[in-house]
Amino acid sequence: MTKAFQVVGVGNAIVDVISRIEDDFLSENKVEKGIMQLIDRDRAVELYSHMGPSREVSGGSAANTIAGLASLGERTAYVGKVKDDQLGEIFAHDLRAQGAVYETPFAPKDHAHETGRCMVLVSPDGERSMSTYLGVSEFLSASDIDEAQMAQAEWLFLEGYRFDGPDSHAAFARAIRACKAAGGKVAVTLSDPFCVERHRDAFLAMIRTDADLVVANEHELKSLFETDDLTHAMDRAEAEIAMTACTVGAKGAHLIAGGSRVHAAATATSVVDATGAGDLFAAGLLHGLATRRDMLTCLRMGCVAAAEVISHIGARPEQDLRELFAQEGLAQKAA
Amino acid sequence: MTKAFQVVGVGNAIVDVISRIEDDFLSENKVEKGIMQLIDRDRAVELYSHMGPSREVSGGSAANTIAGLASLGERTAYVGKVKDDQLGEIFAHDLRAQGAVYETPFAPKDHAHETGRCMVLVSPDGERSMSTYLGVSEFLSASDIDEAQMAQAEWLFLEGYRFDGPDSHAAFARAIRACKAAGGKVAVTLSDPFCVERHRDAFLAMIRTDADLVVANEHELKSLFETDDLTHAMDRAEAEIAMTACTVGAKGAHLIAGGSRVHAAATATSVVDATGAGDLFAAGLLHGLATRRDMLTCLRMGCVAAAEVISHIGARPEQDLRELFAQEGLAQKAA
Repeated sequence: MTKAFQVVGVGNAIVDVISRIEDDFLSENKVEKGIMQLIDRDRAVELYSHMGPSREVSGGSAANTIAGLASLGERTAYVGKVKDDQLGEIFAHDLRAQGAVYETPFAPKDHAHETGRCMVLVSPDGERSMSTYLGVSEFLSASDIDEAQMAQAEWLFLEGYRFDGPDSHAAFARAIRACKAAGGKVAVTLSDPFCVERHRDAFLAMIRTDADLVVANEHELKSLFETDDLTHAMDRAEAEIAMTACTVGAKGAHLIAGGSRVHAAATATSVVDATGAGDLFAAGLLHGLATRRDMLTCLRMGCVAAAEVISHIGARPEQDLRELFAQEGLAQKAA
Repeated sequence: MTKAFQVVGVGNAIVDVISRIEDDFLSENKVEKGIMQLIDRDRAVELYSHMGPSREVSGGSAANTIAGLASLGERTAYVGKVKDDQLGEIFAHDLRAQGAVYETPFAPKDHAHETGRCMVLVSPDGERSMSTYLGVSEFLSASDIDEAQMAQAEWLFLEGYRFDGPDSHAAFARAIRACKAAGGKVAVTLSDPFCVERHRDAFLAMIRTDADLVVANEHELKSLFETDDLTHAMDRAEAEIAMTACTVGAKGAHLIAGGSRVHAAATATSVVDATGAGDLFAAGLLHGLATRRDMLTCLRMGCVAAAEVISHIGARPEQDLRELFAQEGLAQKAA
């Protein structure tokens, strides 16, 4: 029986506040280049006061992936918490307008925190440095997980970042249980090397027990297995994980599963803003998996979608990904 | 004595909600292409629900002009009303981050309206169609005008759109009085042909009495003088207005003053989003006037600044306008 959703994502619901900066700004404001740092509300206010004019675009790692999948015509849903405030309204609109189902109850107006936001500082080389005030997204709890929805997911897609939060493990566990009990599969992103470091044991336990797919970049995968050697990390992944997709920046990406390893080159593009590269890689990959394409095609779809999102400001796709797939000879064959 | 501000702008404080659409969307949603329509909150909510994923960028016509001037290093201030909400915070941040003084008191959290927003629908040809929910920006009143600040303005820049509001005429009158009494000059934009139609008599009265400069496009100028003939409208402008700048789209712009008429060609660019073209034209022009350049240079600065803002999404400048002026041979001569 066809399930209602090809992919259901769970993650931090975030609006990105994007500003171009010179690299000096990073050192002056103690922001580490290329990674994601969690900040509290006071720090967010302070950092924002130093930032130049910005623009706001809905973000959130798994939400970006779901937006990408929805733009590809997939049946998708998203679970993540915003508040009943203007940024929350913007986040919900942008996801629903893309075609995803989004029904997580908003935190009420009197909640002490606001909708989460991420200060995305884009360097001249296109690298992004992120400072995230999680706001109410941190308060996603098991009660926000609709088990019936999870049972309707072919793939459950869990954002590693969401390990940063008091009730997140319970929420993830409930989602995984309901999805798996109904025969669904579970994918996990590692999100960020420092996020992996904060939660390595929990990540490993979950991956060994439940993950049918892990999506990571080379730094995250090396951090997970505490090694500086990518080959060693990929060997460990092959031994311990059913399927692992590992991006290697300008060198493309690897997919490791069932004794096979395939590699795809990165799709040529000029990097304007690296934000969302991993999220859209995951979208392309999951699109391939959900439509039962071969490993190399899945991987190439990931690379094409990642190239689209880094060619402009903002982490949601702007071009028609189906057209880009067709241009690369990846269009769905007629049945 | 040098005044504190080269230009002080007064207008509708607005955040733009920008979405690319196909032209069909305009007819299906009863939005007229290329103009600005005022809408109420219910209509804003309804239209937004039909729009695709969007991005938010601070806007507001005079605010865009002031942001452009501030980015050029001019001493600027802005007067316009936002609420103490998230969009208000974003608007204030973006203007201050650009270097403008912005001290208008926020409408309190319990105000019945929110910070104003403009749904900017960008067609494939780059033309923009705007539906504006004025929100609290409509409630700018004479009490928001700081007479001491107005007395410190070399140029007062009044946004025609702000004629749409109960207390606006009183606010404008107070600002003009304080500015003129201290020897400052007054510039007025006509903003939109339908805005001109709604307020023709008031516009004409103010222009005849107080305006040292009128900034308009050809449609607005023709509407002001109720003629279909641009030459006739320019003749009327020459007879009745001290100085008139009139943009003519891809054909560039005219400046008419003191018995002279000069014309500048449009700066070559590809139109991505026409939003803000007139606002940044005004910024370049006022920059030239404030730095006492000749008429043709003032006009060309307007054309270069307009070309920059239509080459990308959003109505605030993204490139360094000073560099663009230098490339066009318009850099300030050393004193």
